[in-house]
Amino acid sequence: MTDAPFAPRGSKAENEEGDRLSPKFNADGLLTAVTVDADDGTVLMVAHMDAAALALTIETGEAHYFSRSRGRLWKKGEESGHVQKLVELRIDCDQDAVVLRVRLEGPGAACHTGRRSCFYRSVPLGAAPSSELKLTFNDNLRRFDPVEVYGAPKKTDTPRF
Amino acid sequence: MTDAPFAPRGSKAENEEGDRLSPKFNADGLLTAVTVDADDGTVLMVAHMDAAALALTIETGEAHYFSRSRGRLWKKGEESGHVQKLVELRIDCDQDAVVLRVRLEGPGAACHTGRRSCFYRSVPLGAAPSSELKLTFNDNLRRFDPVEVYGAPKKTDTPRF
Repeated sequence: MTDAPFAPRGSKAENEEGDRLSPKFNADGLLTAVTVDADDGTVLMVAHMDAAALALTIETGEAHYFSRSRGRLWKKGEESGHVQKLVELRIDCDQDAVVLRVRLEGPGAACHTGRRSCFYRSVPLGAAPSSELKLTFNDNLRRFDPVEVYGAPKKTDTPRF
Repeated sequence: MTDAPFAPRGSKAENEEGDRLSPKFNADGLLTAVTVDADDGTVLMVAHMDAAALALTIETGEAHYFSRSRGRLWKKGEESGHVQKLVELRIDCDQDAVVLRVRLEGPGAACHTGRRSCFYRSVPLGAAPSSELKLTFNDNLRRFDPVEVYGAPKKTDTPRF
């Protein structure tokens, strides 16, 4: 893999209407990655990629991210075995976000809590929010036991994958 | 609307397994917002929300974002009329990302280029990327004329919505 596997950023028209991959990484060198189920479109998780994670995802067809909490490249499933196989990778108009359409290996869960999707709670709509607002759980089924897969919880606020 | 419409952040277990809305805004005061079609799940766009945008989205049931390029609150459709009506709002495990399930008012387009989705190009998989890699266009149908809706393009790299 070369050091600069992407085309340089072009004009607005080139970035939006061209066929060159010219990702727009933010000040931290990251873009946003949205991972969805390739079959039914369910949003599974949102994470980030640096240039290396994006290049490896393209080359291997398996999802790689950049872990902000650990400050390093992170192959999804490296600890859990729950690899995400890409069916398609999409990029948005200004090339600062990608969508990964994936199939999940293992128990069919993308969330470190054991649930299929990280988006297992919904927010009630139609009234100004307050600190008393109550979320609704839409999915409480654990596809795996997080303690068994990742070990006992650490005393940090860092999600582990 | 009060100044602090959300519960304070709690422990990792409280944030992930509790029913309080305690959003985790980043250093810029933002969280990631993924907007999908409520009917077929297509990812339409990725944007950001500050606390005010999140509170207004919850209260009104219409998508509000924070425009990083303009540095201000932005109601989707304020210029184009293409308002996004929420069917559901989901939040993720550590509460730093939301998914908006919406129905689009107007011509059925979320992208400022006139396309339905911002993710109208895909990246070929299975080989190391290079600057020669070519994106595939999956959707080139303009649901509206961007010049007619937004006026002539400005000489900046700022997408307009």
